[in-house]
Amino acid sequence: MSSRRRFLQHAGLGGIVAAGVAPGVVGARPAMRWRLASSFPKSLDILHGCTERFARNVSEATDGRFTISIYAAGELVPPFSVLDAVGNGTVDCGHTAAYYYFGKDEAFSFDCAIPFGMNSRQQTAWMFDGNGLALLRELYADHGVVNFVMGNSGTQMGGWYRRPVRSLDDLKDLRVRIGGFGGMVFERLGVLTQNIPLSDAYPALEKGTIDATEFIGPYDDLKLGLHRVAPHYHYPAWWEGSGQLSLYVGTEAWNALPAEYKSIVERAASDAHVLMQARYDARNPAAMKRLLGEGARLAPFPREVLDAAFAASQDLYTDLDARNPRWRRIHADYRRFLADQVQWHATAEAHYNAYMRTLDL
Amino acid sequence: MSSRRRFLQHAGLGGIVAAGVAPGVVGARPAMRWRLASSFPKSLDILHGCTERFARNVSEATDGRFTISIYAAGELVPPFSVLDAVGNGTVDCGHTAAYYYFGKDEAFSFDCAIPFGMNSRQQTAWMFDGNGLALLRELYADHGVVNFVMGNSGTQMGGWYRRPVRSLDDLKDLRVRIGGFGGMVFERLGVLTQNIPLSDAYPALEKGTIDATEFIGPYDDLKLGLHRVAPHYHYPAWWEGSGQLSLYVGTEAWNALPAEYKSIVERAASDAHVLMQARYDARNPAAMKRLLGEGARLAPFPREVLDAAFAASQDLYTDLDARNPRWRRIHADYRRFLADQVQWHATAEAHYNAYMRTLDL
Repeated sequence: MSSRRRFLQHAGLGGIVAAGVAPGVVGARPAMRWRLASSFPKSLDILHGCTERFARNVSEATDGRFTISIYAAGELVPPFSVLDAVGNGTVDCGHTAAYYYFGKDEAFSFDCAIPFGMNSRQQTAWMFDGNGLALLRELYADHGVVNFVMGNSGTQMGGWYRRPVRSLDDLKDLRVRIGGFGGMVFERLGVLTQNIPLSDAYPALEKGTIDATEFIGPYDDLKLGLHRVAPHYHYPAWWEGSGQLSLYVGTEAWNALPAEYKSIVERAASDAHVLMQARYDARNPAAMKRLLGEGARLAPFPREVLDAAFAASQDLYTDLDARNPRWRRIHADYRRFLADQVQWHATAEAHYNAYMRTLDL
Repeated sequence: MSSRRRFLQHAGLGGIVAAGVAPGVVGARPAMRWRLASSFPKSLDILHGCTERFARNVSEATDGRFTISIYAAGELVPPFSVLDAVGNGTVDCGHTAAYYYFGKDEAFSFDCAIPFGMNSRQQTAWMFDGNGLALLRELYADHGVVNFVMGNSGTQMGGWYRRPVRSLDDLKDLRVRIGGFGGMVFERLGVLTQNIPLSDAYPALEKGTIDATEFIGPYDDLKLGLHRVAPHYHYPAWWEGSGQLSLYVGTEAWNALPAEYKSIVERAASDAHVLMQARYDARNPAAMKRLLGEGARLAPFPREVLDAAFAASQDLYTDLDARNPRWRRIHADYRRFLADQVQWHATAEAHYNAYMRTLDL
């Protein structure tokens, strides 16, 4: 389909509402209506709330002229099809986790999380003041999408296990529900990864057809009740030192925006980005207390598991550096930035936080 | 002066430019020009860049109708008079560090930093999803100001010392340039605090009329060259686990804004907030390397110093709880939130970061 035809079809689906308004004209404030497809269900209310805040921001800043309707996972397109749907103009924009698309190109993961990657502040620094955003925009351009940072979970928990993981041996032949890079690294440690829908995780853990599943962190995990059937709550998720979420806007939809709407969209996304991390941070503690009160048993992964996973992840990255030029290009920058960040954060930040943890507050 | 008279005077200084435009009318997009007074000099380019980004955001989102001119420290009002200048309508808005005003009310410090307080993510969480913003807005309302979160430095460095601090005894009679709460706690440890302008710190350290000064972190500190006269760089600044900066808007200037401009100002501030932390994080590592290359000697404060400072800070807070009801009210909420945060961040986040620091990246 030509760009022109796709654009007209797209405009018919939503797009520009006011007849006769020329998009892209400086100073014009056309009435516009966009549809946002989320990869997440409404029940994940922090993720969903992030898109609601974004849409409200845009509407308020345009006195209601530019409205964005939010569709939860599956309402318009399947949860893992947001990249395609935005890129081909089926929807104007989307909210998703970039690593869902690592099967198309492993480099998408840099926009979300890779094992032993950046923490939340480091990732935001790379995106806003490092080369992250520019490098990823090149990748997305090939898929008809302009990406924006919109949300982060912080370091996630390592998930729910029926039996405690006390050694590397305990992972052997363990059936764990995990995908993406985390899953690939787990497989190299002898895990049998499973790919069942999240809604089936509870009965599968209860029956013992799987041994473990990972998810997000206390606030979201509490709703699933997994601690009742798999009480051992391991941490950290070394495959998600932070999990960045993204706003995707179709390249053509983006180019059709007046300059001021572009600015409004971009700042609205930044604001929603701040809000998501704030909500997770503010709400996780109470959820953790409740989980512990209901029998969750908290334990770190053993050091030998982390070491083996780190080694396996580096092998994987070496392979990818050799066979995916896009990955190699972004990885070189990401890895250098990460090394500098870890070194710097080890100083004032780490000592301060470590000291605070020793106090009786 | 009556509110009405003050408002008219204020409008004459800048304010509403387009004659005959009724402020506050829904849907109106009046031409407006604001002046922003910063507490910081242009040489602190990350702090200054934050206000530039903010002003550009507002201008872009209004197609140039709403412009904000930035005045560096001292250009319009003295650096520590921003609260008053914004509150009495001398300027429309300002960018400052709230703890400069702790002499008016100690509770202002909760909007910036208190010794052994929240780190950057925790502070943002308290402001955006805890009770922080609402509690502080009550305090600011009494001073004619509406506050917004706009920037954070992260955990700061503890400053430059001519001789290393190896024990609590080394602080006895030490002449340290530090103010605010940090200074009050240092005094309880036997330090003689000094209050000289920053520009005098280099010669004073060189001559030995002071023994140490604190500032911010590697990126800003490098420019001062203090490492050449006081090479011992201690960390962390336990009086600034993070340093939050604020946008102040005069209550009357704020109320005169159309609803959409209010939304645009608020999101523009969020975006500048993200940018400042990102810049500090992204740029500190290279500055630290350079400082170390030029002879800076990095060392943590001894544990006994931290313990004594923590004990002294808690005594101070007990005194304040007893004599400042506003402090007590905000402190109760802050302290509860902090305790929960530290406990939660000690889990996945801390273990992940601690593991990453052990790696050869």
